[in-house]
Formats: sequence, structure tokens, C-alpha cells
Amino acid sequence: MSPVSEREQVAIALGERSYRILIGRGLLADPAAWDDVPSSSQALIVTNTTVAPLYAQKLARAIASRHKQVRVVELPDGEEHKNWQVLNRIFDELLAAGCDRKTVVYALGGGVVGDMAGFAAACYMRGVPFVQVPTTLLAQVDSSVGGKTAINHPLGKNMVGAFYQPRVVVCDLDTLSTLPPREFSAGLAEVIKYGPIADMAFLEWIEKNLAGLVARDPVLLAHAVRRSCEIKAAVVGVDERESGLRAILNFGHTFGHAIEAGLGYGKWLHGEAVACGMVMASHLSQRLRLVDAAFVERLTRIIRDAKLPVLAPALGAQRFLELMRLDKKAEAGEIRFIVIDRPGSASMRPAPDALVREVIEHCSATG
Amino acid sequence: MSPVSEREQVAIALGERSYRILIGRGLLADPAAWDDVPSSSQALIVTNTTVAPLYAQKLARAIASRHKQVRVVELPDGEEHKNWQVLNRIFDELLAAGCDRKTVVYALGGGVVGDMAGFAAACYMRGVPFVQVPTTLLAQVDSSVGGKTAINHPLGKNMVGAFYQPRVVVCDLDTLSTLPPREFSAGLAEVIKYGPIADMAFLEWIEKNLAGLVARDPVLLAHAVRRSCEIKAAVVGVDERESGLRAILNFGHTFGHAIEAGLGYGKWLHGEAVACGMVMASHLSQRLRLVDAAFVERLTRIIRDAKLPVLAPALGAQRFLELMRLDKKAEAGEIRFIVIDRPGSASMRPAPDALVREVIEHCSATG
Repeated sequence: MSPVSEREQVAIALGERSYRILIGRGLLADPAAWDDVPSSSQALIVTNTTVAPLYAQKLARAIASRHKQVRVVELPDGEEHKNWQVLNRIFDELLAAGCDRKTVVYALGGGVVGDMAGFAAACYMRGVPFVQVPTTLLAQVDSSVGGKTAINHPLGKNMVGAFYQPRVVVCDLDTLSTLPPREFSAGLAEVIKYGPIADMAFLEWIEKNLAGLVARDPVLLAHAVRRSCEIKAAVVGVDERESGLRAILNFGHTFGHAIEAGLGYGKWLHGEAVACGMVMASHLSQRLRLVDAAFVERLTRIIRDAKLPVLAPALGAQRFLELMRLDKKAEAGEIRFIVIDRPGSASMRPAPDALVREVIEHCSATG
Repeated sequence: MSPVSEREQVAIALGERSYRILIGRGLLADPAAWDDVPSSSQALIVTNTTVAPLYAQKLARAIASRHKQVRVVELPDGEEHKNWQVLNRIFDELLAAGCDRKTVVYALGGGVVGDMAGFAAACYMRGVPFVQVPTTLLAQVDSSVGGKTAINHPLGKNMVGAFYQPRVVVCDLDTLSTLPPREFSAGLAEVIKYGPIADMAFLEWIEKNLAGLVARDPVLLAHAVRRSCEIKAAVVGVDERESGLRAILNFGHTFGHAIEAGLGYGKWLHGEAVACGMVMASHLSQRLRLVDAAFVERLTRIIRDAKLPVLAPALGAQRFLELMRLDKKAEAGEIRFIVIDRPGSASMRPAPDALVREVIEHCSATG
């Protein structure tokens, strides 16, 4: 285990598209945090109505010396707004202000803001510089690495998007202090995820420090964010475009996406759905005789102690299966799951429908 | 001058994203033309209501052995439909059919179909394989190389898009026989363009063979398409993302885009606007003392003989300038023009507003 501290940094090596993730307290107002951002005539901060009053002016002041003009566009808050209509408001703003192809787009907010600002930056004039300023734990440990951006389509989540890398990611841990408890726990779900798929020592560290993490101790958070980003970077580094290994980061997501879509986007938070999805995927792994009951129980207990749901809503097995066949990992109608091969290692594989039905029935609330 | 023949090929070297452009008669029905396309469960042919009855079934038959299911989506014909609403019909079709990330998207049609199908392929599940089958001369010489895809926004042309390379481009010269004369001439505009910016020997060849080109002689067309693609490839090869040199391909486009936007998209064809824009840009080059009057007259005569407009519509200089400030090459409100430095060589530079006004007034119809 590497030593812990309040300031951390992760280098993402992607050739010409390499960038740094800065992690620490007070970064938003620290001029040095923005050294990797290109100067430009114009900049646009994309944020939402919840985050704007808290941090938009602080960010605008911090970057004022780098751009002649800094504008702010506030999107409505929530996954249900991650659609084309709202995305178009970013393009409207950029075009109305006469923004050129050197304009820097900042994403200030959670995963939804990051996905939309990133996709807008990827497409505006076929690509303008992009900076991530994630203000939720989930966005800090998930969206910081990998360059995935997207919007939802009425027929599926994240169906329209791009791979697009930021110039720098600035994770100011102070922004986590304003997160509602439900959102904070949703972020912990993605932190926990990195244990079973890649690093059981990290899972043990999480287990030991869970009370401190839930209490948002900044030194523990700095380590959790850094280690999560490192693991994700190691996986993404060898498979930028998700042809194979990168898919293991989707542990819990196949079941999770079905929960989100089945209930209607926004009802459960993404991290909540993933948490429950991880419980289901670990049960599936057990039924495939890859892990034992003790492993499933341990992971379920950690997830429950992080104040996350471990019981799926009563959608019915048939509906679950239908929704999962729309998953992007599915090929020719065959659902492919991320399973735990052995603690600390995961892979993608199909599973018999009958087994999946058993898991859904075992893990669902009685409707 | 290299020898001419009915079958030509251009290799586009872009590392992992390298691909071939095949040029010739009868390619649509030739199974060997599709060897570079990956096999997949599903394929979607994106075309329009004009091209579909002519070639969609022929293409579907030619690729039937490579895909279990081949669907066709017909978009309305015309630049005025290159918007988000129509693009979304491609996503609807892909999702309704349960298309996965190995689904191959074919663009069968002109530049508008290529731009929309290419952008849809770039964004669907963050990128699926894409094949260009350009059926207009303009698309064959322009869209075949460079990977530019985009849709229009009410406030600007091609403002939302992506750089995305096809797996192969199949230019069947037989499809040019069904082109209306206006569309054919619009394609010649982009062929002519390659002369003044890069290759005066090619301009001389065009001048000498213009009657045969206008009569659509397939051997002359094969050479014209091949040489145009080669010149574009040489330029794009050193600057895939349009940071500098690639901009010279926009000769005539700064004025041309203003004409298209000022009249409303679809009134003049893109190639017609570019033709007139080249006349204007060569006048600007003359006023900047880069080329002489004889050069301007010669280029104007070739454009007129290709049955293309050489006189701009009476938009007024003020409106022209406003529209040009929205151009993607503009930086911080300063318009940058592609000018001819000397015959066969071009570069990008700003120009005094007063000089630009003179050119607009000199080259415009009296309103």
C-alpha cells in the first residue's frame, strides 16, 4: 500500500493525448492547477443549476487570466436531462457567442455534466479543448479516466457519444463536502468496484476504512480517488476503445443499466444501480462456480455498509433480460456479463438465460 | 502526367486508420470491391429518397454475403435536411433494429448522406465501422478523403461533427451517369480547386479536357477523381486535424459558405457556391498582389466553361462579412481566407475588411 496524503496526482499516458489528474483540497482556487489548460480568447463553463451557485464563480475567477471571456451555461440537473435537446443548448451558447475552435470547454459538475460537456467539446467544430472539473465522487473516480462521453437516446443509455480526452482533470476534494449523502454513497459504489475486478488489497483497505470514507475524511478520499483512477488508467491504457479488457470496468453495469432503464432514468442514481448490479453479478459469478459464497457475502456487506442498495427493484426477469439485450456489450442479441473469475480478477462472458433468471429472482424485491 | 485508365486506386496512409479509395466503373456490383469491409451480423445502408431507387438494392445484393441482415434507411434529399432531427432517424433505425457496435454503416449518396451517415457512425455506441459509397462527383473527390463528418446548426454550417475515417471508399463512376447536370458541374468545382492550390499541371489537364469531362467520359473521370483524391490525401496526410496546411482545401469556401448561408442552405449547391467563392478568393489574391489578372481570368473562364456561376448573389458586403466571421477558420472574430500565393500554391491569412468589401462589390450581381 502506497503512503496516503492530501495531494495526489495520476498521469494518464495516451501518447499525444496524455494528461494529468490532479487530486486534492483547494485546487479550484489554486492557479497552478490550471497550468495544462491552453490559453484562448473564449472559454465556456458547462455546469448545472445545483453546482453553479456553489462553484461556478470560483472557477471563473481561477481561470480568468487564461481567457479573455469566460461564459457559464447552466443545464438542468439530472440524468433525465442527458439528451440531445439539452446538449444543443451548449452548441447554441457556443455559436451565439461566436466561439472558435480554440475555445476551451470546462465541465464543472458530476457525470452528467461531464458527459454532455465532453460530447459537446468533441463535436463542436469537430473538437475543441476540454477540461474536466468533476465535483462528485462518482465523476472523480469514473469520468476522470477513459474519455467516454455520451448522451442518452429514448431507446438506450449512452448510445450516442464519443471517445474524447480532456487536457487535464482537476478533482477538488472540497467539492465533495456539499454532496448529498445519497450521491456520495453512489460514488463509493464505483470506488468499491475497483477491488473485486482488479485489486483485493484495495478492497481490504476500503473495508477497513469504510467508516472514515463515509465520514468523508479528505486524506482517505485522496487515496481512494487516486487508487481508483490508477486502476482505471491501467485498464484503459491497454484498451482505449473498449475492444476487450476495458469492459471489466463495466462490472455491475449490465444489471445496473437495466435497473436504471427499467425504472426510468433518474429514479435510482447510476451508482446505486451499479452497486446492486455488482451484488447480482457476483451472485452470477458464484452460480458459474467462479467465486464462493463468502466472497459474495463480503462484497454485499461492504456495499450495504456504504449505504447502497443490495436488492433489485421488482422489474421481473423477462423485462430485465429484454433491457440487458440492448446493452452495448451485447453482440447479435447475446448478453455478455462481467463476472469475477476469482477475487481481484474479472472477465466478460455470456451466461445461460436460466442462470441469469435465477440470479434476478434471488436478488429482486418481491413485487 | 501519369497514364489514365478506367480503374484507379488511392491508398490513404493514416496508420491504424489507413484505407483504400477504389475508383472505377461497375464497382458497386463487384464483390472484390468490398473486401476491406469487416463481416458483421447487421449492416445499415444510409441513403436518400433520390439515390435509393437507383442503387440501394444493387448495393444490398453486393454486400449480402458479409452481413446476416442488411437494412436501408432513406433520408430526405438536400443540404437543408443535414440537421439533428434527420440524423436522429439513423440512430432510431440502429436502435430499433438492436444494432450492436460491430454493425457496419454504409453511406450511399452524395456529401450530405456521407456527412450524416459518417457522423452517425462516429457517434453510435461511440463509433461503429463506416463505409463510404459516394454517388456524386463532389462526394467522390471531396468526401472520400479527410474523414470530416458533420451536421449543420441553425447558426452555422458543419458546426457539429467529428473526424472519422471510413474502412474503404468505393467510387463507382457509373453512378455519375444519373447525376443532374447542375450537380455534376458542382462536383467539377472541387476538381478544379485542386489545380490552383496545388498542381498547375492538373489545372492545365482539366482545361484541355474540360469538354470531355463535362461529357462525362469515364476514362477522364477516373483520372480526375484519382488525382483529386491524391492531392487531397497528400495535404490531409500531413495535417489530419486541420491545424494548418489542410485549411488550403478550403479555397473558395469562406466566401462560398457565406453565399450558402446568406441565401439559405440548398438554394445554391455547395459546389456552385465554392466555384463562385474561388473566383472571389482569386480576386482577393490579386488585390493582395499575389497573382496577376491573367491568372484570375483563366480560372474564371475554366469555372464558367464548367457551367458554374462566377457572379455572387447580391447579399451586400456587410452581410457577407458578418457571415464570414462565423467561419470555423476565423479566430477571435478575425476572418482568415485561403489565398493563392502563386499559381499552384495556397495559404491561409487575414485580409483588410476594405479589400474584402471591394472584392465582394466587384464580384456580386447588382441587387
